[in-house]
Amino acid sequence: MMDRPLLMKQLLWRAERVFGDKRIISRTGDGEDISYTYAEYAVRARKLAQALTALGVRPGDRVGTVAWNTHRHYEAYFGVPCMGAVLHTVNLRLFDEQIAYIINHGGDRVLLIDPDQIPLIERLAPDLRGVQAYVVLADTVPETTLSPVHSYEELLAAQDGKLEFPDFPETTASAMCYTSGTTGDPKGVLYSHRSVVLHTLGLCLHGSIGVREEAIFLAISPMFHANSWGIPFAAALQGATLVLPGPHPEPKHYLELIDRHKVTHAVGAVTIGVMMRDLLERDDPHYDVSSLDVLWLGGQAPPRGLMKWFADTHAVVVPQGWGMTEASPLVTFTALKSKHDHVAEDDVYDVRGKQGLPLPLCEVRLVDEDGDDLPWDGKAVGEYHLRSPWMASAYYDDPRSPASYDAQGWFKTGDVGVIDPDGYVQLTDRSKDLIKSGGEWISSVELENSLMAHPAVAEASVVAVPHDKWLERPLACVVTRSPVTPEELTAYLLEHFARWWIPEEFLFVDAIPKTGVGKFDKKVLRARFGEADARERYRAEASR
Amino acid sequence: MMDRPLLMKQLLWRAERVFGDKRIISRTGDGEDISYTYAEYAVRARKLAQALTALGVRPGDRVGTVAWNTHRHYEAYFGVPCMGAVLHTVNLRLFDEQIAYIINHGGDRVLLIDPDQIPLIERLAPDLRGVQAYVVLADTVPETTLSPVHSYEELLAAQDGKLEFPDFPETTASAMCYTSGTTGDPKGVLYSHRSVVLHTLGLCLHGSIGVREEAIFLAISPMFHANSWGIPFAAALQGATLVLPGPHPEPKHYLELIDRHKVTHAVGAVTIGVMMRDLLERDDPHYDVSSLDVLWLGGQAPPRGLMKWFADTHAVVVPQGWGMTEASPLVTFTALKSKHDHVAEDDVYDVRGKQGLPLPLCEVRLVDEDGDDLPWDGKAVGEYHLRSPWMASAYYDDPRSPASYDAQGWFKTGDVGVIDPDGYVQLTDRSKDLIKSGGEWISSVELENSLMAHPAVAEASVVAVPHDKWLERPLACVVTRSPVTPEELTAYLLEHFARWWIPEEFLFVDAIPKTGVGKFDKKVLRARFGEADARERYRAEASR
Repeated sequence: MMDRPLLMKQLLWRAERVFGDKRIISRTGDGEDISYTYAEYAVRARKLAQALTALGVRPGDRVGTVAWNTHRHYEAYFGVPCMGAVLHTVNLRLFDEQIAYIINHGGDRVLLIDPDQIPLIERLAPDLRGVQAYVVLADTVPETTLSPVHSYEELLAAQDGKLEFPDFPETTASAMCYTSGTTGDPKGVLYSHRSVVLHTLGLCLHGSIGVREEAIFLAISPMFHANSWGIPFAAALQGATLVLPGPHPEPKHYLELIDRHKVTHAVGAVTIGVMMRDLLERDDPHYDVSSLDVLWLGGQAPPRGLMKWFADTHAVVVPQGWGMTEASPLVTFTALKSKHDHVAEDDVYDVRGKQGLPLPLCEVRLVDEDGDDLPWDGKAVGEYHLRSPWMASAYYDDPRSPASYDAQGWFKTGDVGVIDPDGYVQLTDRSKDLIKSGGEWISSVELENSLMAHPAVAEASVVAVPHDKWLERPLACVVTRSPVTPEELTAYLLEHFARWWIPEEFLFVDAIPKTGVGKFDKKVLRARFGEADARERYRAEASR
Repeated sequence: MMDRPLLMKQLLWRAERVFGDKRIISRTGDGEDISYTYAEYAVRARKLAQALTALGVRPGDRVGTVAWNTHRHYEAYFGVPCMGAVLHTVNLRLFDEQIAYIINHGGDRVLLIDPDQIPLIERLAPDLRGVQAYVVLADTVPETTLSPVHSYEELLAAQDGKLEFPDFPETTASAMCYTSGTTGDPKGVLYSHRSVVLHTLGLCLHGSIGVREEAIFLAISPMFHANSWGIPFAAALQGATLVLPGPHPEPKHYLELIDRHKVTHAVGAVTIGVMMRDLLERDDPHYDVSSLDVLWLGGQAPPRGLMKWFADTHAVVVPQGWGMTEASPLVTFTALKSKHDHVAEDDVYDVRGKQGLPLPLCEVRLVDEDGDDLPWDGKAVGEYHLRSPWMASAYYDDPRSPASYDAQGWFKTGDVGVIDPDGYVQLTDRSKDLIKSGGEWISSVELENSLMAHPAVAEASVVAVPHDKWLERPLACVVTRSPVTPEELTAYLLEHFARWWIPEEFLFVDAIPKTGVGKFDKKVLRARFGEADARERYRAEASR
């Protein structure tokens, strides 16, 4: 067959030639939204490639971005990889030292930064030895100590956009993300043109999120986190209208954008969904979200109560998926099967509560501690091992890679759970989040989901704390919506779980600490509340 | 990224593991339909691979099939490629000499044949020097001169199905089809595992035919013709119910199957759609086709009246596409855009009447005679050049390959038309030498050359004229050197071609009109004799 490589420019070709009049909308944060067509977009992406070439960027060089979800950031999404350079999106929510580590370890030559990120980069600049130029994503350059520094718009204005993106092997690196989900320094994941193209097709399939021309997609998930789950690439391929929430987005901005641009699909973290529900419940101001059909929530399992609330009050389907930076990120998606057409509503939520079916080309194994296959019976609990053409084969320049892969090259996810006979993956825990009490496993995630389904509970995180007799016991940290007692929560949990699963201790907190990507930060909870004394002191202070 | 190759066994993996309880239904032709699950199917596909290995088939060997759309043929669709051998589907409707050429040129080692095809293969067997074994797709072997000959079911019964399909490079050949669409001997197109996997994803996308789990697909298009347009592969990947119409299918069988199995999607040639409409209009017997949502008609453009009839009377959408054996086959598909949501019905049919938008990864150029790009303005007429990862890069072992590709590797389709500003491809004229009758190509040049070899014929030009049932039929315009009758010419042609190639009508003319460079001007012939009335008038005048 034609040895035509899979290249990201083919995605851009379709956006420009087949869907050239479809639009990209970008919230500026000060009034008017920016709106232009994919045809205009493609010209600007080529101008960016020309400008970066003029700055000395060569194929293989890394171009870092420290930016929000904006049209300019999106121009780099194609402009940088299609010229043969590597788009390195830096998570601006991390700690200073992590950001500096990531930029240096990635070897970024040029940094594209949003104006509000200038103070951050000025702080780090003395340590960023490889960076040869800074480009501020703005019309002009504000006062700054960064040097040499350029204005993005001035750079583009100097170019004509007449450039034919080159061919190269499909295994050429296209993009790079660092994952901070584990202990130690962040780990870099390098994507290829091939992997991005294949993952993009995966997002456009029936049975997946199904990016399509007629959809209006609000990309809430940050473009600095696993490429906003690949939605921006898929929107281009299918000519979907793409709505970008701009700098410092808050839940109210998402609702405003849904209202203003008749958004049909929104994609973001579960915690965002919770906050959007709270605003919609308050209904002051009122947002018209009647256009919204699908709210894809990821990062962790959306509570059943949240899914039901959106379905019952706004006819919004809340699907979920399972993924990870290493997997581009999507692995499973909660498509229902035709057999669920006529089952009772509660049983449908049993299915929607799982992480879903493996996407095409994503092979999943469920293995025991010896690496042997476990049955897909919905009961046997094991670790998931993955293999797919959009799965990273190693971490970038990192000695920790071998620990994450088995001898046959399967990626050991560290996620633990079951697979039912229909092929639905259901995570019970990260392996390190499991609680081993008296030799038996307790799933913190199942306890959390159950607690968060209680009407008085806003958020709940369950972690293991040391115990003299059982070695570990669950501790529930709870944020309440209305008054509730530990006794009431215990009684509630006993309806669903065996007595030995029930936490003896509940801590009522103001907020659950979150990681840079919005997940519950259990490391922090364990560190703060691991000692019984610390919990006593906290309760004493809270009761004052 | 993970250098996981794209292999067809990944499609089968999903059918077996994720959709193991979904069903394949195969019409036997004598009463009861066969029905079994994808889980059972996968075991039988592995047994076939074991049986073929036992017969001496090795990776790279070609295994030919001369068979209808049945479950056994479908087992070969995965069983043969997944073991590393090459599935060679032979078009059993071709002329004996073409079939022998194809089997010999392809180098088939084993032939899987339907019982009713035994007389055909017995006739050819003395010429099939490379074939080392015949397998009859039946429980037992009927009386036959073929040798050595085996029963398919007896071979499978001897195997345990415990086989792990091997890994190999994704560029490994997986399947092979011959196209008889051009002059001279048929040309072989070799598919790779990569191209089949990518084309399969293409069929499952939003904006394409969209094969999905909840669909019940009736594969009318023959499995010996461009792999039934890839539907059987896509059905496995997505767990769609697959309905196969079995041996010697007629339009009434399709309607019976739609009625009996609540088919939602049917896929076949335009001429089949015409015949189905005629039967439904007659309504005796009555068929309940209320389950049918989509009738994808291909091979040539469905007439607007046919599309409207299905929509108005049965709420069935009739999309079309454009493809060719060399392109696996699909290139474009008539998805509507959101901008068409509120346009008048007639304008919608203007869009549906076009061949559609390029699928993802399918790049199309419209070029003039010098190979320069023409604008996509809906007016400029040019030839389509194609590039995609599922496009053949050459014909198999064929010196004619270079003529079909330009210097940059684009495939020159020979099809001619326009592209509108929205990216819709609209063929205004095909390669003018070809006649599409009942979904199959007839080469006018071959007929002409044969006629002109007859001692009584001076010149002959064959053109397509419209036909109610077959949509196009060949008309032979003949300049004689000495008296000859249509019956004599028919008998003469039957020595060289299958009966369905033979023109029903011969017109004896004084001269064939010529173009400026002395070629037959077929446009003039089509304009003059395209209407049956005009031919009648001409004959009446000529006989005076």
